This record gives sequence, structure tokens and C-alpha cells, in this order.
Amino acid sequence: MTGQNPYQLDLDRNAANYVPLTPLTFIRRTAAVYPERTAVIHGSLKRTWKQTYERCVRLSSALKQRGVGLGDTVAPMAPNIPETLECHFGIAMAGAVLNALNIRLDADAIAFMLQHSESKLLITDREFAPVIGKALSMVQKKPVVIDIEDPLAKGGERLGELTYEQFLAQGDPNCAWEFPADEWQALALNYTSGTTGNPKGVVYHHRGAYLNAIGNVLTWAMPHFPVYLWTLPMFHCNGWCFPWTVTAMAGTHVCLRAVTPKGMYDAFADHGVTHMCGAPIVMGMLINAPDEVRRKPAQRVQVMTAAAAPPAAVLEKMQNLGFDVTHVYGLTEVYGPVTVCAWHDEWDSLPISEQAVYKSRQGVAYVTLEGLMVADAATLKPVPSDGATLGEIFMRGNTVMSGYLKNAKATREAFAGGWFHTGDLGVWHPSGYIELKDRSKDIIISGGENISTIEVESVLYRHPAVLEAGVVARPDEKWGETPCAFIMLKEGAAVTEQEIIDFCRQHLAHFKAPRTVVFGPLPKTSTGKLQKFKLREQAKTISTLHTSRPRGEFLTTEQQRREN
Amino acid sequence: MTGQNPYQLDLDRNAANYVPLTPLTFIRRTAAVYPERTAVIHGSLKRTWKQTYERCVRLSSALKQRGVGLGDTVAPMAPNIPETLECHFGIAMAGAVLNALNIRLDADAIAFMLQHSESKLLITDREFAPVIGKALSMVQKKPVVIDIEDPLAKGGERLGELTYEQFLAQGDPNCAWEFPADEWQALALNYTSGTTGNPKGVVYHHRGAYLNAIGNVLTWAMPHFPVYLWTLPMFHCNGWCFPWTVTAMAGTHVCLRAVTPKGMYDAFADHGVTHMCGAPIVMGMLINAPDEVRRKPAQRVQVMTAAAAPPAAVLEKMQNLGFDVTHVYGLTEVYGPVTVCAWHDEWDSLPISEQAVYKSRQGVAYVTLEGLMVADAATLKPVPSDGATLGEIFMRGNTVMSGYLKNAKATREAFAGGWFHTGDLGVWHPSGYIELKDRSKDIIISGGENISTIEVESVLYRHPAVLEAGVVARPDEKWGETPCAFIMLKEGAAVTEQEIIDFCRQHLAHFKAPRTVVFGPLPKTSTGKLQKFKLREQAKTISTLHTSRPRGEFLTTEQQRREN
Repeated sequence: MTGQNPYQLDLDRNAANYVPLTPLTFIRRTAAVYPERTAVIHGSLKRTWKQTYERCVRLSSALKQRGVGLGDTVAPMAPNIPETLECHFGIAMAGAVLNALNIRLDADAIAFMLQHSESKLLITDREFAPVIGKALSMVQKKPVVIDIEDPLAKGGERLGELTYEQFLAQGDPNCAWEFPADEWQALALNYTSGTTGNPKGVVYHHRGAYLNAIGNVLTWAMPHFPVYLWTLPMFHCNGWCFPWTVTAMAGTHVCLRAVTPKGMYDAFADHGVTHMCGAPIVMGMLINAPDEVRRKPAQRVQVMTAAAAPPAAVLEKMQNLGFDVTHVYGLTEVYGPVTVCAWHDEWDSLPISEQAVYKSRQGVAYVTLEGLMVADAATLKPVPSDGATLGEIFMRGNTVMSGYLKNAKATREAFAGGWFHTGDLGVWHPSGYIELKDRSKDIIISGGENISTIEVESVLYRHPAVLEAGVVARPDEKWGETPCAFIMLKEGAAVTEQEIIDFCRQHLAHFKAPRTVVFGPLPKTSTGKLQKFKLREQAKTISTLHTSRPRGEFLTTEQQRREN
Repeated sequence: MTGQNPYQLDLDRNAANYVPLTPLTFIRRTAAVYPERTAVIHGSLKRTWKQTYERCVRLSSALKQRGVGLGDTVAPMAPNIPETLECHFGIAMAGAVLNALNIRLDADAIAFMLQHSESKLLITDREFAPVIGKALSMVQKKPVVIDIEDPLAKGGERLGELTYEQFLAQGDPNCAWEFPADEWQALALNYTSGTTGNPKGVVYHHRGAYLNAIGNVLTWAMPHFPVYLWTLPMFHCNGWCFPWTVTAMAGTHVCLRAVTPKGMYDAFADHGVTHMCGAPIVMGMLINAPDEVRRKPAQRVQVMTAAAAPPAAVLEKMQNLGFDVTHVYGLTEVYGPVTVCAWHDEWDSLPISEQAVYKSRQGVAYVTLEGLMVADAATLKPVPSDGATLGEIFMRGNTVMSGYLKNAKATREAFAGGWFHTGDLGVWHPSGYIELKDRSKDIIISGGENISTIEVESVLYRHPAVLEAGVVARPDEKWGETPCAFIMLKEGAAVTEQEIIDFCRQHLAHFKAPRTVVFGPLPKTSTGKLQKFKLREQAKTISTLHTSRPRGEFLTTEQQRREN
């Protein structure tokens, strides 16, 4: 035996000791252990885990009867309703791939996705019949269309031959379904909301979804039986994997067709919501909700937010209202969030403004992400942890996509050098916490100096009159580029361009302060991301005598809304 | 492309999106994110995560300098002290396999293990020098010996050339270490405390340890920064994976060289312990602790217990003392616990005696165990979920061992049919909860009827005079076998054999009541398991006029102790 590794003899994988990781295991267990607990609440509808599981099995069975299986794509077009949740399990139970469509997209984009994904079946909420009808007319190989008839939907006609309920009725509730043969098998497809060109189809596998779902539990130290409010769209990185996370913890999914302050405050009070995820805009809604819809939450609510760091004022108001905010960061390519601003107890005693500085950092890797670094984009050499040297953010781990569907070139580029290239720029603090500075294409280079648009925006957000802000480069003969700020004011607020510039100069190196300020509503993608490329185009067209309105005359939020 | 699965094209694993799962990732992250938090407390010693991590890296470096690496075994012989914890990371960082030796074993058993595992290096606490010295004299290929000099150890001499601290000093704190190349790589070796024959060496891989460590978090819904008291030995199924679990949650390991009531109560009050695991005997210590050592725990303490279901009286006393008890079940072959008596809120309102009935069940699979069934041992067909039909308990999942080292035959038998055969017998309740009835070799067959020794023991434990009980088969001419009870009485308690028998007949079908009762201390394995084979041998020798002492004359616990 000498020289031979005894641990490699007769100790192989077999059916007893190796099972592919898959989030499907979560629903099977929860339905078995807690059949009578509430799985889902939607308006006046409540379903138990037993019922929900049965519906998922029926869905998988009905799909299989239609010949849908391994390698096939099924696309739901629906808001946060029980059917969308069921699709997160039932489609994979049939071995197929879930492509949750973004309900805010137009027919062109939907048609592209249906065609690119070769979707065999489309499950669509009636409210979206107009856009879906148009999209279908543009697709060559038409998928089977199933209509969801949600009683809370507003209008819309039926497009398919069957309703979702009729389709489920065809399925066998006792149909056997199987775990994927390989944990690398595709589970979901999510198109990036590319700001230019065709969107790319990000492929998630079962292993990654299982691990990121658990990563959410570890990051939030979630309790048993969380009551989770669905404000984050399930079509957005599969609701950052929370359909699987909440199910793993035998929680309750509280659906919201549309995110409104009243809908949220009612859910807090009536259903005892404990957790939710939301973009900064959702926090704004909570803070600025009219008095008549505010109700006291049954308990403190944990809020996970991504995309932009919450300013101090927002943080403080949220805390006072009973919300604890956790700041995470991620991308579609990594199953949603994979870093967290892991909090240190000792920061609790800092003034709220300093807390906000810490909280604004994107932080450290999830337990389930093995590699995270800020490095030189060309050499992949980590930059110094000095809080100043800009580098690109790179990731490595099991919650990184398999790649882009039918796009080997983009996949190769994304993984060059054995790391996932996020395209985001940031710094590495001495504590090891990363802080996002910009998308590489968003950075402003003024007189040879880098200006982080995020840094300028964070100062703008501290101004009491500012509701939303976006900063982009404006071409400048002398400096190359200068910062141009687009600002949406709060309702009733008024401020001059000069006041904004002065405010920034107080809080920033002067070269970083905007030279130009434009007031008005900001263009957003369908997932609520600021469309900076539109702002950049606009900034290019601003004449040197640029002010879009005579100085001193500003729109209130109310007026801006009307104009929008 | 027709007929080809587009999800299998150019979407392969690579360094960016696939990383072997390993618990080593936990300590790297925790040391990076929370370098100054307390990792370990041992007497007056405290070390941070930064310090602990550095010591683990030094250990791995020193091992590599000695040529220890892939496929090599390193065996620590030590109680729950920081060095044992460090071995749970540092040995694997060198690519080697940890074989934590049971400190209660004798020289013969230790010598067998050192030889069978081909241990290259032995790290031994000085207190165990006598038994280790003897064991080493029996081993042909002697390992390098490193002595741990724990200031809290009682006596013992040095056996090796180096102390553990000297060894660490040889290591480079900046030594690069690598994740295992394959998550299937062996991480740990744990010998079963076989009651007959040579122990079998159970091999754990990195994937399973990672997943069971996380399974503990999910099962207990653990918070960030748990303060974990080490009463469960780390050499027992690697402390059921809690060295890795607690580290993943950036908690604090509170060491205890020896488990004493004072040591535990001091830790609760002084260190704010939040979690601990312990056999029923540990709960007994807490309940029966003398007044002078009792101190109020800083907060409620979560206690995970295995091996035997806690009786109602114990449960109630524990709850009143501030302990919440979770009942789990597992075996060495499955990394410790893999089932949990998952609690239902509605059970809280039941009388404590009924709560104890539910709590006594071994329950349902951990989230991280994919398969659990009670089935016919020959056909592997599941038995009905009627709470009555006896079957063998089978498991399947990623937290099942790779197999037995150098024992292909035993491995094959354990995995026959693609399930792990536990050798434990149980029933399946209509709720899907399993309840252990017996080891298959322990079951008593009397007049053709099965008698579960666990069932009889659970009745005996309800008798107020009984401290510990063990029931085995006694050969009987008429019935084949009859139940024979061995009982250790509580201090100061007195009861007659007939009273015990009558009590059992009140609570059991009459044929299940013991025909024979023997009073005295019970033989245990070094891990505290009842040695039923010894009781069986003793039962065989009991004459028909069996009473070991004249009727009416019983030993108090105190007297029993003296005789022991």
C-alpha cells in the first residue's frame, strides 16, 4: 500500500452518499414536515405547503405530458403572485428551465427572449396580454400559451387555449418527479437588463441556486418560519433566490401584485411580515407613505437592500420606523447578492451619519462565495487595501452562473483568467470591505482624475431637497469630462443649481462637484435601475448655456410627476 | 440545433464558477471579516479569530514541512481545548486527514487506530501520556509525537521531541494553503465505538462536512455570533461538525477540559453561552447540580441532545432552568445528527408529558439530508406510516460518509441498495416523523413478539427512583427471550424489583414488562453509550433465582459509586 492514498480506495460516490444539490429538496421537505403551515398569501387567498407542493407537482406533471423536459425552457410572465412562486419549483421538477420574464419589458424584448430561449411554453398573467400578444406575433416558433387568471389582475384578455388552473388540473398530483441527474443542470435563465444591445441570457444551475438560497439564510441569520413580503420581483434574479430561501426555512410568501405603501403596511400589520427585500425606491415609499396608510408593523422588519447604498437620513428614518436595513450587493450573473455589509456591533454606537458611511460599503463575501477581490482588470493582481486605489471587482465561487446561453464569446470574456469580471469598479478598505465606486463604463475622467459617480450621488442624496440623483460624464473641451447631475426633487422642495453645486463643493474635492445640474424625473430600466446611458446622451446635448429651465424656476415633485 | 440541449453547450465548470465545498472556507472568511472577535475561550485564555486562524495556518505549514499532506493522517489525542479546534482546520489546510482520538480509549484501541490509519503525526495532550506511551510501544511505524502542554492539564509527561507551541513556531503564518482539489477529498476519519470487534474507520469528505455544518445552522436557525459551550467531545463525530458550524457563524468556542456542573454554570454566566450540545447525562448534571455552583445563565441556552429522548421530567426541569432542548439523531457514519424532532408551535400548549412524547421522536431529515426512510431491511420497501410497523432506518444524502477506511466489504454492506443502512429500528408516524425503537441487534423477541428495549427504558425513566436504565434480552426457555432491566438508582432512592415490574406493567403491555431487574451501575463506552453487549452477557449468567442482592436491600447511588 505504500505510496498509495488509502483514502482513494473503495470510498467512491454512490446513490447513498452523493445526491445532486438542488433547491427542490427544500419544498419537498417543508411540505412533508409542515404540511399545514401557510406557504403563500395573496389577497384573501391562503394556501398551505401541502397545497402549494401539490400544485407544483401538478405543474411538473402537466408540463411533462406536453413533452416539456430536460433542456426545454418555460417562461412565466407574471408579477409576484402564487403562480410565479409555483413556477420556481414545478418547472424544475419537470427537468426544464425557468425563464421568468420581466413584466415591465416591451414586446420587442419579450419576443427576443422567447425566441432566444426557444421557450416551449409561456405562462402569462392576463394583465400582460397586450404586450404578450404583440410579442407572440413576432416569434416564429410559437410556444404553447397558458393564461393565469388572477382575480386581482386588472383586465387583459386570454391568449392561450388553457388557463393555468385547467393546465394544473391535467397534471397528476402524485406524479413522481426526480432530482436533476447532475447538480450542474440548468435551473433558470435570467436575461440581463442590458442597457445597450441584446440582453444576455444568464444560466443558473441547481447547485448554485441551492447554495445562494442557503447563503441568504446564513447572511441574514434567518429564523424558522420567516414571513417574507414580496416587493422584489421574482423575475429579478429569481427574486435573488428567495423563493427557495423562504421555502427552505418553512416560511410564508406574502405576495404583492403591485408595490404600494398601503399594500406593504397592511402586510406588516396583518400578516406579521418579518423580512423583505427592496430597492432604495421601496424604502422611500415606506418613509414617505401618507399617514392614512401607515400602520404599526407587528414586529421589527428586516430589510435587505441592494443596488445603492442607503443614505444616513434614509437609514435613520427606517430604523425609527421599525426596519433594520442590511446592505447587499450582487449581479444577475451571481444569482443576486453575494456580498454583504456585515455589521459590527461596535458600529451601533456611532452617530448615524458614520453608521451610514460603513453601511454604504458593499462589504464582504457571503459565506457561500469563495472568492472576492478588487484587482487590476488587466493583470488580475489585487489592488492595495487602502480604501483609495480603484480596481475592478472580481468574484469566484459556486454561486457564479454557468455562463451566457448561446454566447460562448461573452462567457469566455466574463470568465477570463478564472474569475468572474463584474465590470464594477471599487476600492478595498483596510478592513477588507469593498466599496463600489462605479460601473467601469460610468466612471468620469476629469482632467485625468477619476471621479466616482456613486460618490457624487451619495453626497447629493444627503441634500434635504433631493429625492433621486444620477451623475454622468458630460464632454468638456477643457477637462475632457465633467460631472453632470440629474436630480429629481422631493415633493414641495425647491433649490437652485448653484445651491446644489455649493453643497457638493462643501462635501467633496472641488473637481468632483457637478458643473451642471438638471432637474426632472430620471429614466429607469424596467427593474428600476437608473439608465445612465440615457443621461449620458442627454448630457452630451446640453448647450454650454445649459440650464433646462430659467434659473430659480424649479418643478416640484408633483409637477414633475404630471410632466412625466 | 434541434434536438440538442442548448444548456449543455459552452456552459461548463471553470475556476470562476466551481469551487470545491469545504469547511475551510468558514475560518478564512470569519478571520477576514471579524479578526478581532473572540474565537476561543479556555480558562483565562482568550484568542481572536485572527490569532486562531494564524495558528491554524502555522499548523498546516509545520505539517507540510514534515512532509505531511494528501492522504496522510494526523491524530490528536486531546479534550475540548483550543488545540483540538485548531486541528479541525490546520490539518485539512495541509491536505491531510484529521483523526481525533477518543481520550477515553485504552492503549489497545489507540494502538489499533494509529496503525490502521497509518497516522504520520500524533498530537497528544500531556495528561494522556500514560495511555499514549503504552499505545506507541505497540505500534510498529511510530508517528512523530507532538505534546500539547495545556496549563489546565493534570500531570502527565512529555513523550515527543516538540511541544505543540514549538511545532507551531516552525510554521509560517503566511504560508499559502489551498482548498482541496476535489470536494470528495477526505477531511476526517472517525472510528466507531464498536461494541464488538475492531472499530471501523468512518471517512468524512469536505463536501459532507461543509453541508452538515450548515445543516446545523439551518436546523437550529442559529444567530450570528453564537457562544458555544464545548461539552460534547470534539473527537465525537468531530463534535457533530460544530467546530465548523460555530466558525461559519463567527461564534465563540468556549472550551471545557472536563464537563462539570460548575464549569458549565460558570460558562453560562461569565461568557453568555447561547448554545451547547450534550448527551442526556449532561442535562442530568445541569438539573442535579449542587446549589453552590448554580448561577443564572446570562440568557436562555439552546441545548441539542442526541442518543436518547429526554423524559418529560427532564424536559420540564430544563425548561424551567432556562434551557430549550432540541432532540436530534444521527450516527458516526452520517457526520453526527441528520434528523431533528422539528417542533410545531401548536405543541407548546400541550401538557409537558405530551410534549415529551412528541419530543422523544427522532423526527425528520435535516434540510441537508435528502433521503430518510423506515423500510423493510430485505426489500428496502418503506413500511406504512402507521406509528407501529417496525422497519430499519435508512438514509441517503450528501452528509453520509464516503465509507469505511480499508474495509470495502463493510462499506458495500452499509450501502447495499443505494441507501445507508443504519442498523437502527424504528417506526414511521403518520406525520412522517420517525421514532427509534431499537438497534436491530438489541430488539427482544419474546414469544414471537418484538419488544423495543427503548420503549421499556422510556417507561423506566419515568419512575421517580430511576437515574439510568438499560434493558436487554435474557434467554428464556419458554419465551425465547424476556426483558431484563439494569437500573442505576438516584442518590438516596430505594425501590424493590417488584415495584419496578409493577410500574412497567401499568404503563406497558404486560409481555413487555421486565421479568428481571438488576440494580447497579451501568457499563458505558468511552463516549458514554450504554454497552448493551455487556449487559446481555451479564443477563445470560443470571440464575433463575437471579436477584443479585437479597430482595429489599438496595444500594443508594452513593454506595453504587463507591462500589464502581
